[in-house]
Amino acid sequence: MSKNLTKRSEDYSKWYNELVVKADLAENSGVRGCMVIKPYGYAIWEKMQAELDRMFKETGHQNAYFPLFIPKSYFSKEASHVDGFAKECAVVTHYRLKTTEDGKTIEVDPEAKLEEELIVRPTSETIIWDTYRGWIQSYRDLPILVNQWANVVRWEMRTRLFLRTAEFLWQEGHTAHATEREAIAEAEQMMEVYADFAEHFMAIPVIKGVKTANERFAGAVETYCIEALMQDGKALQAGTSHFLGQNFARAFDVKFANNEGKQEYVWATSWGVSTRLMGALVMTHSDDNGLVLPPNLAPIQVVIVPIYKGDEQLDAISVQAKELMAMLRKLGITVKYDDRTTHKPGWKFNEYELKGVPVRIAIGPNDLANGTFEVARRDTLTKQTVSHAEVVRYVEGLLKDIQANLFDKALAYRDEHITPVNTFDEFKEVLENKGGFVAAHWDGTTETEEKIKELTKATIRCIALDSMEEDGRCVLTGAPSARRVLFAKAY
Amino acid sequence: MSKNLTKRSEDYSKWYNELVVKADLAENSGVRGCMVIKPYGYAIWEKMQAELDRMFKETGHQNAYFPLFIPKSYFSKEASHVDGFAKECAVVTHYRLKTTEDGKTIEVDPEAKLEEELIVRPTSETIIWDTYRGWIQSYRDLPILVNQWANVVRWEMRTRLFLRTAEFLWQEGHTAHATEREAIAEAEQMMEVYADFAEHFMAIPVIKGVKTANERFAGAVETYCIEALMQDGKALQAGTSHFLGQNFARAFDVKFANNEGKQEYVWATSWGVSTRLMGALVMTHSDDNGLVLPPNLAPIQVVIVPIYKGDEQLDAISVQAKELMAMLRKLGITVKYDDRTTHKPGWKFNEYELKGVPVRIAIGPNDLANGTFEVARRDTLTKQTVSHAEVVRYVEGLLKDIQANLFDKALAYRDEHITPVNTFDEFKEVLENKGGFVAAHWDGTTETEEKIKELTKATIRCIALDSMEEDGRCVLTGAPSARRVLFAKAY
Repeated sequence: MSKNLTKRSEDYSKWYNELVVKADLAENSGVRGCMVIKPYGYAIWEKMQAELDRMFKETGHQNAYFPLFIPKSYFSKEASHVDGFAKECAVVTHYRLKTTEDGKTIEVDPEAKLEEELIVRPTSETIIWDTYRGWIQSYRDLPILVNQWANVVRWEMRTRLFLRTAEFLWQEGHTAHATEREAIAEAEQMMEVYADFAEHFMAIPVIKGVKTANERFAGAVETYCIEALMQDGKALQAGTSHFLGQNFARAFDVKFANNEGKQEYVWATSWGVSTRLMGALVMTHSDDNGLVLPPNLAPIQVVIVPIYKGDEQLDAISVQAKELMAMLRKLGITVKYDDRTTHKPGWKFNEYELKGVPVRIAIGPNDLANGTFEVARRDTLTKQTVSHAEVVRYVEGLLKDIQANLFDKALAYRDEHITPVNTFDEFKEVLENKGGFVAAHWDGTTETEEKIKELTKATIRCIALDSMEEDGRCVLTGAPSARRVLFAKAY
Repeated sequence: MSKNLTKRSEDYSKWYNELVVKADLAENSGVRGCMVIKPYGYAIWEKMQAELDRMFKETGHQNAYFPLFIPKSYFSKEASHVDGFAKECAVVTHYRLKTTEDGKTIEVDPEAKLEEELIVRPTSETIIWDTYRGWIQSYRDLPILVNQWANVVRWEMRTRLFLRTAEFLWQEGHTAHATEREAIAEAEQMMEVYADFAEHFMAIPVIKGVKTANERFAGAVETYCIEALMQDGKALQAGTSHFLGQNFARAFDVKFANNEGKQEYVWATSWGVSTRLMGALVMTHSDDNGLVLPPNLAPIQVVIVPIYKGDEQLDAISVQAKELMAMLRKLGITVKYDDRTTHKPGWKFNEYELKGVPVRIAIGPNDLANGTFEVARRDTLTKQTVSHAEVVRYVEGLLKDIQANLFDKALAYRDEHITPVNTFDEFKEVLENKGGFVAAHWDGTTETEEKIKELTKATIRCIALDSMEEDGRCVLTGAPSARRVLFAKAY
């Protein structure tokens, strides 16, 4: 059955845009660049949130909430942060509307102008460090391990659902420490948490690494990241964790008395993942038939569809369906029994395939007669007839299989798409014809990095943490290099 | 021990402001009217969220997310909504900042002016109904039962932590129905959900009722509410649920084909509670020693404090404390063992009293010798010596007792403060000297309602759902009235 979905091989970008809308994940709103996250999409995001929140709390973090607005002047305080963030922002200049003279429409009241404009937060380092100044006096007040779930706004000119939107949802952790060592350990720990989450929960293999100076977060001393590879060979930065040194403490004058009574500036980290992960999820696993969801993230893990003629048959099937549903639910599996009489089984099969439900169980007249169920898995689109006695254990195992299979498949694809190259011709050839990560020597300069980007659109995604020392020469300049870095075109 | 907290009898308002800050619930930020919700306060809000979210899902609702910004023109579409909401709002007019010529500060780029100004949502009916137009074609698409957890902004001139802030957190449910009857049932159901939550979870007794036309939500046909009474005799609206008729469907042209194929406008409700509930929580239960938290909402339900001299004694106490902690945790009770050596027991007692931890268990040398624990409850400030054998069951029961006791105490206070009056002199006398709800006859006109407000500052909080018909005469005008309504001064 056709879902009128563009094939990935025809136009990957179009396939993505169509799928996000057709699978009811999100849609564009009447506000430029701002999306509506629909209930089915939001249910997936809630599962991500719940797991991340659990992991953050397990590592000692607490949630808090800081203001949406940041006074303009705060952005001038940390020099490199200005360059990075105080650019494409939504600016609040007035605080009142009034009805026009004819009473028909409303207009901004010119007399209600703010003394200082407010920026809708693009990220919260400035307002948070302005607050931490009041929270920190002594080493006994440290560490502060705080996270916030929030919306942020960056005025992107070209937007795409989940991948790049003017408003998006995220979490941002902001921690304060007494020592450099502890802050670095925190930044590294959170990169590990993100990697663990991406791989074990989302089934997305990631490369852990650090960014080059050029690609670092504005205001960071070191930016750790996890990089994933999409099915079209483009990389996607799935999460970042920054060691901020004492930059924000200096900018906002946040000092503490150490255990010898001496005043020192506080050390900082920040780290975040966003609704962008929804885009990564779609682009890693889904296929030409629609979404493919890892069981861990599927709002519905198992759907049961009756195939029947007449009420009597439906009643008999319903008895078995409800019994099975109860048994699966006891194991914590989310099950839906779709006995709507307004839609045919074929329509339902199509719908749940499009929505990526991992396991579909059909019960028809033959199954009734034979004491069986037809169990189909979404990832491989294969079916199996299973007896009543075995079905619960079978489905339980199948969900684990699907989760593992999705990761393995994505990992195999990713590993096939890390290509070492030694010349610039090879570099271009691989980028153009194969895609993925290109592992190449680079002379360490921003100039070369930018020249390569200009020539190929590829950026340095990261210096992988597990990269080994290896003497070589920069693919562009021939200057000596001590290790390969990973280039790719990226989202 | 003194916490330097103003006494409620001296200055209730000051007591509240001090307590919210000293108990680490929230503080003012560098942004006018916007608060920082601190980790301890946010942990309580998270417990409220989790329970409400569970209740919403149990009644068939799903979460979604809609844009922060609303185009100005949307507010002109529903006439009465404009009057109510398109007033004190934060308005985004520009989308870019740039560095000043001297490079030292930043300024708004005058060239980056939006064609149409965007309003930071004060509530989301307009953007949501603009979206629903695309979601609804036929009766098969109905009902839509959606909720959103979000931040909203109303540019209040005089703000107070939690009670009235420019930005606050809330949930807003927005549902769409095929029939008037179903929409009214939904609005009533959500009022019941809120009342159930307030009473059984927050231990706050509430009166269920409907608002007068004058106090109705802008755009609603009927506003249902729950009204609570604070310890200073002022009422606080703790939640509202609105039957919106077809007003927003008409304004945004949202129609559906009914099962006869005829086009009809969709029926709507919306309902919300906010971080204002945090203020209600503080003002209902807390005392001159600090917060008093119902066990259901306490981030820490039980704290164990060792009283010791020397390491050896501490070690012996710690063994018992950890054993007890493990047993309580098995029952799902949140326990903290505070064995910090940097603070004395007296300091800790004080701290946990201020933070409202429901149960405190102390273990001292005598307890070690006698095989006992000293168990103190925060609500009554009383202590009991309990044997090892009995302590787990005792604490489990105590938490339930405290939850029930807080509700009973608040209910008794509330019931004592509903005073029927029959003359305007009595009305004024009760309001002034006793406070609370005044049950009085009213002639049903907005004119009288506003006159009474002008003279006494009291507003009609609600027409209680359980109020009985009773012939009487309006306290102000003497005009006939069929039932009493509840007046009060309010937050």
